[in-house]
Amino acid sequence: MPQPELLETFPNPYPGRGYEIKMTCPEFTSLCPLGGIESDARELDLLKGGAPDFGTILITYRPADLCLELKSLKLYLWSYRNDGIFYERAVNRILDDLADKVHPAWIEVVGDFNIRGGIKSVITARRPQNG
Amino acid sequence: MPQPELLETFPNPYPGRGYEIKMTCPEFTSLCPLGGIESDARELDLLKGGAPDFGTILITYRPADLCLELKSLKLYLWSYRNDGIFYERAVNRILDDLADKVHPAWIEVVGDFNIRGGIKSVITARRPQNG
Amino acid sequence: MPQPELLETFPNPYPGRGYEIKMTCPEFTSLCPLGGIESDARELDLLKGGAPDFGTILITYRPADLCLELKSLKLYLWSYRNDGIFYERAVNRILDDLADKVHPAWIEVVGDFNIRGGIKSVITARRPQNG
Amino acid sequence: MPQPELLETFPNPYPGRGYEIKMTCPEFTSLCPLGGIESDARELDLLKGGAPDFGTILITYRPADLCLELKSLKLYLWSYRNDGIFYERAVNRILDDLADKVHPAWIEVVGDFNIRGGIKSVITARRPQNG
Amino acid sequence: MPQPELLETFPNPYPGRGYEIKMTCPEFTSLCPLGGIESDARELDLLKGGAPDFGTILITYRPADLCLELKSLKLYLWSYRNDGIFYERAVNRILDDLADKVHPAWIEVVGDFNIRGGIKSVITARRPQNG
Amino acid sequence: MPQPELLETFPNPYPGRGYEIKMTCPEFTSLCPLGGIESDARELDLLKGGAPDFGTILITYRPADLCLELKSLKLYLWSYRNDGIFYERAVNRILDDLADKVHPAWIEVVGDFNIRGGIKSVITARRPQNG
Amino acid sequence: MPQPELLETFPNPYPGRGYEIKMTCPEFTSLCPLGGIESDARELDLLKGGAPDFGTILITYRPADLCLELKSLKLYLWSYRNDGIFYERAVNRILDDLADKVHPAWIEVVGDFNIRGGIKSVITARRPQNG
Amino acid sequence: MPQPELLETFPNPYPGRGYEIKMTCPEFTSLCPLGGIESDARELDLLKGGAPDFGTILITYRPADLCLELKSLKLYLWSYRNDGIFYERAVNRILDDLADKVHPAWIEVVGDFNIRGGIKSVITARRPQNG
Amino acid sequence: MPQPELLETFPNPYPGRGYEIKMTCPEFTSLCPLGGIESDARELDLLKGGAPDFGTILITYRPADLCLELKSLKLYLWSYRNDGIFYERAVNRILDDLADKVHPAWIEVVGDFNIRGGIKSVITARRPQNG
Amino acid sequence: MPQPELLETFPNPYPGRGYEIKMTCPEFTSLCPLGGIESDARELDLLKGGAPDFGTILITYRPADLCLELKSLKLYLWSYRNDGIFYERAVNRILDDLADKVHPAWIEVVGDFNIRGGIKSVITARRPQNG
Repeated sequence: MPQPELLETFPNPYPGRGYEIKMTCPEFTSLCPLGGIESDARELDLLKGGAPDFGTILITYRPADLCLELKSLKLYLWSYRNDGIFYERAVNRILDDLADKVHPAWIEVVGDFNIRGGIKSVITARRPQNG
Repeated sequence: MPQPELLETFPNPYPGRGYEIKMTCPEFTSLCPLGGIESDARELDLLKGGAPDFGTILITYRPADLCLELKSLKLYLWSYRNDGIFYERAVNRILDDLADKVHPAWIEVVGDFNIRGGIKSVITARRPQNG
Repeated sequence: MPQPELLETFPNPYPGRGYEIKMTCPEFTSLCPLGGIESDARELDLLKGGAPDFGTILITYRPADLCLELKSLKLYLWSYRNDGIFYERAVNRILDDLADKVHPAWIEVVGDFNIRGGIKSVITARRPQNG
Repeated sequence: MPQPELLETFPNPYPGRGYEIKMTCPEFTSLCPLGGIESDARELDLLKGGAPDFGTILITYRPADLCLELKSLKLYLWSYRNDGIFYERAVNRILDDLADKVHPAWIEVVGDFNIRGGIKSVITARRPQNG
Repeated sequence: MPQPELLETFPNPYPGRGYEIKMTCPEFTSLCPLGGIESDARELDLLKGGAPDFGTILITYRPADLCLELKSLKLYLWSYRNDGIFYERAVNRILDDLADKVHPAWIEVVGDFNIRGGIKSVITARRPQNG
Repeated sequence: MPQPELLETFPNPYPGRGYEIKMTCPEFTSLCPLGGIESDARELDLLKGGAPDFGTILITYRPADLCLELKSLKLYLWSYRNDGIFYERAVNRILDDLADKVHPAWIEVVGDFNIRGGIKSVITARRPQNG
Repeated sequence: MPQPELLETFPNPYPGRGYEIKMTCPEFTSLCPLGGIESDARELDLLKGGAPDFGTILITYRPADLCLELKSLKLYLWSYRNDGIFYERAVNRILDDLADKVHPAWIEVVGDFNIRGGIKSVITARRPQNG
Repeated sequence: MPQPELLETFPNPYPGRGYEIKMTCPEFTSLCPLGGIESDARELDLLKGGAPDFGTILITYRPADLCLELKSLKLYLWSYRNDGIFYERAVNRILDDLADKVHPAWIEVVGDFNIRGGIKSVITARRPQNG
Repeated sequence: MPQPELLETFPNPYPGRGYEIKMTCPEFTSLCPLGGIESDARELDLLKGGAPDFGTILITYRPADLCLELKSLKLYLWSYRNDGIFYERAVNRILDDLADKVHPAWIEVVGDFNIRGGIKSVITARRPQNG
Repeated sequence: MPQPELLETFPNPYPGRGYEIKMTCPEFTSLCPLGGIESDARELDLLKGGAPDFGTILITYRPADLCLELKSLKLYLWSYRNDGIFYERAVNRILDDLADKVHPAWIEVVGDFNIRGGIKSVITARRPQNG
């Protein structure tokens, strides 16, 4: 179950300057929804189906007053490990959880997911959309 | 014969946000038209000619109310397997079939085809064109 | 249905010299067996399952009296397009069909198949085995 | 908890020929042992530590009478997902589970694990060792 | 001698849509001018000098009413094989021959030539220039 | 302890022309802050933690009257070797030290740091911000 | 028409030492035989067919008393430009022409030809075969 | 000593069209200034220091009435071989020498120099600056 | 000062099997000897010279009764950070420290060091030498 | 003029162990012989011809009692800068100069030279030849 309460921040050491921070997290994994139904806390049932998903999460933001603490981001992303969730919801939820915690001037989240059924998917969301 | 009725959708979980979805499908195959004549349902006749074509289809769209279901896209692309069709028509037809089903804010289809006669072809179409 | 009768040969222009010929065929496609049952002449049924397989076939041989005609090899590999067949059988059957036609001093066939279920397979067979 | 009972086989279609099968599985994940103690069935506890491990498992074998069924291998590797285990044990256990099920003429398992603490590890084991 | 009469077209199947076609032709060869003098129909004279040139021609266009037939493009490019011509003229002549035949909304021709005297040359021309 | 007094300049040989200089420094190393507390002059204590950080610093600037002397830049970057400092502060401090010494028309500093806890970070800052 | 009389040599400056020379010639072109019939001096007839072939010739040898002069090798390879010849014959003929001129301790010629009909060919010949 | 008098031109065969020519010269070498003092005609003194510099010069221009003759460019760049010169001056001087000879609509010179003291430098200059 | 006492081991979980463990450590840094004199505990003196060295250490071994604990290896390699040492000694000393602690059946250490003075060095040592 | 007297050595710190040292020197340059005549001390005459050659020298050796000092190797290779010499002689001369100075158990020199006339050359020599 995604745990946004794990996210931590520290004061931006150069708050007046509009610089940019980009983080690449290549070890994201969750579960695909079982029978098309998403579930926050699901066990991987090897016989019923519901395969693990793997991907890379890329986060880019321009900090305002706060910076995202790196280790807490790692723990937060681990909290998707046993979650049955669509790609589209995962990317947008990470975007919202980070934006609500860090209040950046601008933030973008990209989910670059491994091939499934011979097809590769990449989802990109931003807040504000045209920032 | 291309079967757009195979395409399925699900409700966009974040409909108010203009995010982007990109899908890469590297296992597209169809037949080239026999004697320059296209045909929706043709058998590969090994002696008459009419060679198989291979390529990668790249689809990028910004969803409005609907998202494209990944597995149904796979089945839809398989339905070109025994179709005799020009590159130019295939790319534009995929664009129209997807746009008519998903009604996205914007959609682009790229067909990146393998080398034929020492020449490689890439076709790109969008709807709306300047979206 | 695999058609070894399509294979053609021409006389080796340097029969006394043990040189080597390697051919890479990156556009091989067949169907995976439906319900685990192989079938020589099957239509792709999009709803029942039985997905297309894609891969690269690599052929290396040392000719004796005959060389393999390149265009006929292309047609022969096309003849697997609507065949439901296991990777293991496809690679070994290609090996046998080529060896029976060309009678080479030594021949190796490698099937390098695309990822399925997150797993990539490569099958290698030789005749004679330790040549 | 690793579940070797998930592994399935099918009869080798060319049992008399010593050919080779290589499978690459880039989506392996397990947990690292908590406090240095391995555990077959452990939940990921985000606060106590015990980080997820990620890696690629490469399996090469020469079949005797049996071939390994690809989909069952995928399920078997998924069964390590919530297992707290050292790299060294994981690779050797996969080797033993596969060898005991498929009885191959020769088998090699390589675990190529992602960087941890700035160090990348690759473990290679074979049965029989000098086959 | 370049033979623009070899070029053929077919009607654009989607004439109302401003889509783009890109063709990559990596097997272009001509002769460099002998003594700085260009010549439409020259034999390669191995002793007098006048070396062969090699390069890749990249063509991108947005079709209006006509599409360029792929096989005829191949034959047209072959017709430069025994032509003594400067890079700058070859790229601009191909641009003009194609534009005059296909009447596209926009067309670009890039000549990416192999290293000569330790220097690599790439020439790019467009019609209309700012299309 | 970062030593900006090590930086040296020489007169820009083409002061009237707005050209650009880009320097890539792949051997940057510092220490991560111990217990989240930064320190200008800290010894690496192998048992208490406080790991070394590694990364590449990319500097791009448009010189006004002065150019940055290459060897003095190397010495300045070495002076971070035993400094406990956050990524965010290091990049912004390098930016300020260089800008205060060279007074460029525009300058950008990118810190591309190695993976830590499975996450890679890239920080980008500019002065003036929209130059 | 291949012209081995163009090949020139110079005395090996270190004749007593068994060192190795490798030359890579990526700009080889010839014509494919028209109607399967090879011809030493043929014009490319764009309408009758008989396509140009392109490839890389790799030559490795251990000189005895003579070394191959680089510029003369270039001219010799150019002499295949208007020759209708099978891959198998071209590689073996280059091998024989070079060996007869340079009398090396050992020589290998590899022809790595561009994709034709979706298939890539590499031919390797040596003199003496097991040198 | 740089010798701009070596540069030669030929009339642009398509003077009315604003096309672009790009040349990549990967074999540029000069000497670094000895004791920080530049010198047009200096011998490399192996004991006093003053190391050779190596880099790639990339030239892009849009011709007006003249094109740059390729072989003369090669000779001109060779004339820096024994010159003690700063990177910043070399790039700007090549820009001025070429612009003064060819009078192009626009020209850019990039000097991409090899790593020195662990730092790589790339200098970019244009005339006119915003062309 | 290198601290071999930091190295820790754990019992080999499969002691009877001769498997192989390979570790890649891309973040090794030490100091080069000042005035050619090595020193176990030296501060980096920015003005006197004595530049930092950077490289990748690759360790391959076949465990006997013990395995090397990964985190302790990281700390041990960090202990070279302020050490003035030649490449040749560093690689051989790491080899000896590891071999004396882990008593492997065979071990190899490779030091792949960054370019210095335009030259890249790779040192390889083994114990036993022909194992 | 090549100056082997520039080469320096230092005592091998681990003389009893047969380890290996590999050095890659990508910035080698000399002049090609003018009119086929080699010359130890020649100026580059831009009008008479005699082009500069560029390449990478790779040196691998197993030290006995002495190691090669890195900086002196750099100076020694610089001494070929104004030397008119064939590839074959340069590689063998470097081999002899190094072997005569360092007396290694085994040494190999590879000269990997840039493309000339569309052909790339690599020369490899060893002392002792089968070491």
